[in-house]
Amino acid sequence: MDQQIRALLSRAESVAVVSHIRPDGDAIGSLLGMGLALLHAGKKVQLVLQDGLPQKYDFLPGSEMVQRSIKAPFDTLIVVDCSDLERTGVVLQGQGSPDLVVDHHKTNLAFGRLNYVEPQAVATAAILVEKLPVWGFEVDREVAACLLTGILGDTIGFRTSNMSPQALRIAADLMERGADLPMIYQKTLLSRSIAELRYWGRGLTNINYEDGLLWTTLTLDDRIKAAYPENDDADLINLLSSASDILVVVLFIEQADGKVKVSWRSAEGIDVSQIAFEFGGGGHAAAAGADIIGSLENVVEIVLTKTKSLLGDRKVN
Amino acid sequence: MDQQIRALLSRAESVAVVSHIRPDGDAIGSLLGMGLALLHAGKKVQLVLQDGLPQKYDFLPGSEMVQRSIKAPFDTLIVVDCSDLERTGVVLQGQGSPDLVVDHHKTNLAFGRLNYVEPQAVATAAILVEKLPVWGFEVDREVAACLLTGILGDTIGFRTSNMSPQALRIAADLMERGADLPMIYQKTLLSRSIAELRYWGRGLTNINYEDGLLWTTLTLDDRIKAAYPENDDADLINLLSSASDILVVVLFIEQADGKVKVSWRSAEGIDVSQIAFEFGGGGHAAAAGADIIGSLENVVEIVLTKTKSLLGDRKVN
Repeated sequence: MDQQIRALLSRAESVAVVSHIRPDGDAIGSLLGMGLALLHAGKKVQLVLQDGLPQKYDFLPGSEMVQRSIKAPFDTLIVVDCSDLERTGVVLQGQGSPDLVVDHHKTNLAFGRLNYVEPQAVATAAILVEKLPVWGFEVDREVAACLLTGILGDTIGFRTSNMSPQALRIAADLMERGADLPMIYQKTLLSRSIAELRYWGRGLTNINYEDGLLWTTLTLDDRIKAAYPENDDADLINLLSSASDILVVVLFIEQADGKVKVSWRSAEGIDVSQIAFEFGGGGHAAAAGADIIGSLENVVEIVLTKTKSLLGDRKVN
Repeated sequence: MDQQIRALLSRAESVAVVSHIRPDGDAIGSLLGMGLALLHAGKKVQLVLQDGLPQKYDFLPGSEMVQRSIKAPFDTLIVVDCSDLERTGVVLQGQGSPDLVVDHHKTNLAFGRLNYVEPQAVATAAILVEKLPVWGFEVDREVAACLLTGILGDTIGFRTSNMSPQALRIAADLMERGADLPMIYQKTLLSRSIAELRYWGRGLTNINYEDGLLWTTLTLDDRIKAAYPENDDADLINLLSSASDILVVVLFIEQADGKVKVSWRSAEGIDVSQIAFEFGGGGHAAAAGADIIGSLENVVEIVLTKTKSLLGDRKVN
């Protein structure tokens, strides 16, 4: 596999790299890290995120290159951090299969011609740290900053239940290559806009809790009242999952298109990806999501029923 | 130095280990880690913290051994994570100099007979990870859990400006020796009650912002609605002061006794302690507080007027 990928990337002259809608730290870090490694090796590169780059990642090298659609011909298509083609949005409609998919989601559908999928990796960016040199590319100072952003994002600052000694060592290597850990941590995980904090306030005020199951909602009205400009949860899920005595956290985000974005987080030993999958979504055992058609009220009801039946008689320790 | 320490600890039969008042993660982790390493090598051990062990550290191995004073004779005295003797409180009064001091504060006064002080280390616990084996002791699973607690505490989860690649690698080693990073992180740095989160929600929903000045209120009613049992802010001020584009944060907490507890936080170069002082309170340039008699409404008004006049024409960058 490594040899095939190396050959593919060596041949490539003009590459489009794409990641997922509502991009998070790992989507962005992997996209920019992969893109800059190719660029610094003399390739032409397009970096595509359908939803564009959230402002707080502006400081990253290569951020100014991100575009919302494919704008020019390319000979090689790479998709990073996506378990299926739908996760990229509509930017790849009519483009055929990606030449290479690099991902760490265990639900990955292997939708590329070559698929490098490592479910044990804490982040797609962590895979790239190890594999870019194997595939013939340098992890320089700029690439290192992007990839550390990805690892910090998906491990929420080295604290998710899948954290490994290897992930810490990879981060140490990236620091030595010049990535400024405290600065990246501050900018991507800590710094919050006033609108985000107000929006969190609405979600936190509405918390419900029952036998280890915590859930809350973010409505369209909450978003308007808080003047929060995005259609996501502003990472509220991470704060919620830090609550004590939690087995599962579910967050419902009402969308303007008649759907509800649902995010699950779970304690060790509880696999929420199976529920997400039933609702047409995906993810990992400990962190999963789905976009579900229906009113907020109805989606809350059916999702809570399913989630409670997954928990069964399980009790908080 | 290592040889002298090794000889000292080899001779020791009964050891008292002491750390500082108002103990934090590194004081506790270093105390327990050092103590358990000695205990597991067959020594008698007393572990002493004048203020006892905060409840959230209860889960750590050896936590049940912590006592608030010296209770029995000992032949060897070790002080960890203290820059001077005063930091231990009064537990060592009349005991003479410690035989060994292990610390990472650059202000350390070298008040022991032997002093192992490494100001570059991110935590005293990080020194012990490297030195315990050199001094003849094993970093077993229990010791590893304690020492990782110390590192996480002093680096606030690997994010302080002094973070080093070495600190990440040390943490990786501790994970491999059996320390459960996600669990320790959760218990010592994150764990928030549902009531705290709901209470935060009310404060965040009410955020006001004007030209770099952010303020919000927590009313008695908020406290009741959230079922929050304390009369403080549940550390909400720390979250507020992580907001972007902030010069000063002011938090007003309505009290049952007709007072309002006011907390200020400020960006570098703005001294809020002078305002706090005018209202009968005190603190530091960047963090100050006062208890002010009056209705919430009135206190908000007079405090904001004073605070705005301190800011004058200052603008957010």
